[in-house]
Amino acid sequence: MMMLTVERHSATPVYRQILDHVVKLVDTGSLAAGDRLPPTRSLARTIGVHRSTVLRAYEELWAMGYIESRPGSYSTVRLHRPRRSAAAAPAAPGPVDWKAATTPAARTVTTQVARRDLRLHGSVDTSAGMIDLSRLAADHDLTPHEDLRRCLKAALAEDGKGLLDYGDPAGFGPLRATVARRLRVHGVEVSTDEVVVTAGAQAAIDLLLRALATPGDRIAAESPTYMSALPLFRLHGLDVRPIPVRDDGMDLDVLESTLAASRVTTVYTIPNFQNPTGVTTSQSHRERLLALCEQCRVPIIEDGFEEELKYFGKAVLPIKAIDSRGIVAYVGTFSKVVFPGLRVGWLAAPPLLAETVCALQRVTSVAGNTLSQAAIHRFCETGLYETHLRRIHKAYRRRMATMLESLANHLPAVHVEWTRPQGGYTLWLRITHPRYEAPEAEASLHARFLSAGVKLSPGSLFFSDAPATPQFRLSVACLTEPEIREACRRLGSAIEAALVE
Amino acid sequence: MMMLTVERHSATPVYRQILDHVVKLVDTGSLAAGDRLPPTRSLARTIGVHRSTVLRAYEELWAMGYIESRPGSYSTVRLHRPRRSAAAAPAAPGPVDWKAATTPAARTVTTQVARRDLRLHGSVDTSAGMIDLSRLAADHDLTPHEDLRRCLKAALAEDGKGLLDYGDPAGFGPLRATVARRLRVHGVEVSTDEVVVTAGAQAAIDLLLRALATPGDRIAAESPTYMSALPLFRLHGLDVRPIPVRDDGMDLDVLESTLAASRVTTVYTIPNFQNPTGVTTSQSHRERLLALCEQCRVPIIEDGFEEELKYFGKAVLPIKAIDSRGIVAYVGTFSKVVFPGLRVGWLAAPPLLAETVCALQRVTSVAGNTLSQAAIHRFCETGLYETHLRRIHKAYRRRMATMLESLANHLPAVHVEWTRPQGGYTLWLRITHPRYEAPEAEASLHARFLSAGVKLSPGSLFFSDAPATPQFRLSVACLTEPEIREACRRLGSAIEAALVE
Repeated sequence: MMMLTVERHSATPVYRQILDHVVKLVDTGSLAAGDRLPPTRSLARTIGVHRSTVLRAYEELWAMGYIESRPGSYSTVRLHRPRRSAAAAPAAPGPVDWKAATTPAARTVTTQVARRDLRLHGSVDTSAGMIDLSRLAADHDLTPHEDLRRCLKAALAEDGKGLLDYGDPAGFGPLRATVARRLRVHGVEVSTDEVVVTAGAQAAIDLLLRALATPGDRIAAESPTYMSALPLFRLHGLDVRPIPVRDDGMDLDVLESTLAASRVTTVYTIPNFQNPTGVTTSQSHRERLLALCEQCRVPIIEDGFEEELKYFGKAVLPIKAIDSRGIVAYVGTFSKVVFPGLRVGWLAAPPLLAETVCALQRVTSVAGNTLSQAAIHRFCETGLYETHLRRIHKAYRRRMATMLESLANHLPAVHVEWTRPQGGYTLWLRITHPRYEAPEAEASLHARFLSAGVKLSPGSLFFSDAPATPQFRLSVACLTEPEIREACRRLGSAIEAALVE
Repeated sequence: MMMLTVERHSATPVYRQILDHVVKLVDTGSLAAGDRLPPTRSLARTIGVHRSTVLRAYEELWAMGYIESRPGSYSTVRLHRPRRSAAAAPAAPGPVDWKAATTPAARTVTTQVARRDLRLHGSVDTSAGMIDLSRLAADHDLTPHEDLRRCLKAALAEDGKGLLDYGDPAGFGPLRATVARRLRVHGVEVSTDEVVVTAGAQAAIDLLLRALATPGDRIAAESPTYMSALPLFRLHGLDVRPIPVRDDGMDLDVLESTLAASRVTTVYTIPNFQNPTGVTTSQSHRERLLALCEQCRVPIIEDGFEEELKYFGKAVLPIKAIDSRGIVAYVGTFSKVVFPGLRVGWLAAPPLLAETVCALQRVTSVAGNTLSQAAIHRFCETGLYETHLRRIHKAYRRRMATMLESLANHLPAVHVEWTRPQGGYTLWLRITHPRYEAPEAEASLHARFLSAGVKLSPGSLFFSDAPATPQFRLSVACLTEPEIREACRRLGSAIEAALVE
């Protein structure tokens, strides 16, 4: 009846192929109201896919109003299609013009995010042997799923009732204590009360800006900076003052004159393995940055998103560790080490700010996911976190070394520069050939890299203003050593071709 | 050495008693640097508490810098106390005055929340047989922990890698489809794309306001309304236009004149078992409300937080179900039915608004907790949700009936009124005696109820302006039937005493 075959290597997911097929049969009248669909189990067997794939297709069909289902019975084609959703409806304007009803900031952010996604992922066929140097999340293959399952089970067994009820808006108490203690390893002395657990580092920065920023305020940030900080700054109506990143970090002379020239609400900085450049600042750089901000009475948001990922050389203490006068709000997360899907991050801030953030968290989301927080607490307290950390240090020390060695082997000796990170996942590549100085040069190089089978993150995504030269972020996060070598080989050929043409 | 005894029935938690004891010993010099603390296991045995209680005390002591611990070794008193946290530091002002640095809205919200907590929970001794009618969360004893554990396990087994990685900012796809399908049960036809999964209903309302509201905008809301919506409105700088709640819901004549008199950005309404009053509006009320808003081109935020909790009489369709012209953003949640600690709610909105909210969610928190979303999806798809729903309907139908019957039995026949909800957890009590018309009457009655051993939610917490008469919210959420009867008996005596005195 169905005559459905699925293409396993298509860019269209298999469940979607099944769904599209049924929609077509209904829309063309081949399937009529009341007709039975094959049971999921037998359809799965017939076309050779997992039953959950068929279930997902049927679920979507159900949600779209194409079929009716009852547990334990056949799915049948619905008699009447439901009213078309507004998405599919013709453009007859309703009483509310949603484009006009949404705020300019929300609209801009929506457009920015959509454009960014298009530039990052648009038109890229990842199924064709593409090597992806754009992902910034620890490798799936290193994730200790089984350990997490055990931690979840133990946490539920010990206090299932408590963990499944509304939690503390400041976060699961024992995890706050764990974070405070863990920060001590990095020289940061804070009490549990100064730690607020958040739904990841992004949520922590958002809460801090909600506490501190008013639309029109100025924020000084490294340029380039964390890609997703930029639309967040925009959402808060902030005017970004870009401070260029040099080999040793944010240019402090520029920062000094920026702070002197205009009132700045806060300085946002990533001192370790800066995202995207991979630059780590020195102790003296941190001391001068802190002194400048103390002098101008400007709070610092220190983003320590990869604090634990130092695997080459000696660690430098966070700015928060030398913040004796209480001007630093420190942001951390588990996501770059383990379980980003659980969304557990934190901030450590002076008491009044911590209290404010906690009230804001309560008012905007009641509390966090206590069960996940308890599971991560257990993961830390039973030593699994330390074990895991050693394991990823070992893996990434090798991957980054492979990357640095392969870049040296394959990239041209002139007109190309890259950073040499002491940890983390990313490094930064600059093409300094005079031919590639125009703003559109990045796009043409990016296209070349894609056709060579290498996906990088275009550098301009990390700037609030247009960068002068083509720059790219390379991440070793999800690649094996052979893949890294091959990526550098492809990159080398593509750059050489671009430079000699 | 320690001479520690714990008081089990003290208001101070046991772990805190242990902690305080050690702090005292260190501060007075009875314990010196390097001294060993007893192992957690043996201390727990000695004082007769669970080992996790001792562990928690030790963890806090560690975080506070009083002791050092290494896995598998003794905890010892630290040589140097760390620098005192800013909280404990003398009031020498630092370079940043955090009170001035935080925004006025953030400060106000922090104060509001702190004051509210004080009025709700302050000075109440819950250990002395107090019956708590203030909690609004399904009873612990009804929570299907074991089912959740199995759902988590199965979800991890099927796609552990995917679920622990960054998820879709719109929410776990199959759960979005489940929500869309579930909404169909209530007559709401939306596509999966129009559903965005959020970290609870509170987060959904916050995201909608971020998309729609600009400081200074007006929002019309029932008065009284959901307690935690008020500081959220304040955070967004909204000017609340209170629309009185009558026996049949929001006074639509007042709404009509409010919409006519000034530009209102959005109307926030809870049509089912309104929080706090318990009032459910009729189909015709919903139709007129929708027509009024369509006419004035004002979006509606419909808070369906207890949509599934109708257990008396026939269900009325949500406003969203009759919203053929796309002006309603619908908010829902699992939290009032099951697992509030997992923070899983959603919104269903017209496509452009859903897309905007999704971008905002991405920019403010990257994505949600995919594992919890997948576990809840499984809980629904395997029929456990429906089973659980039947179970809580049965329980609360009996509890609410007991409450209504006991109020009729024990409360005075005059000068006291209460609502008769058709579902949900709460009802609303008004004291209409002329003696209690002053604004301070609520506080004096509240104090009486507390001394009688009944904890209610003071009504003024649910108003943006001061209410004329003393009103209270009563919740049957966490009480057994005998407790409900006893609470009504105590309440009856207290009110009678107050009225005759």
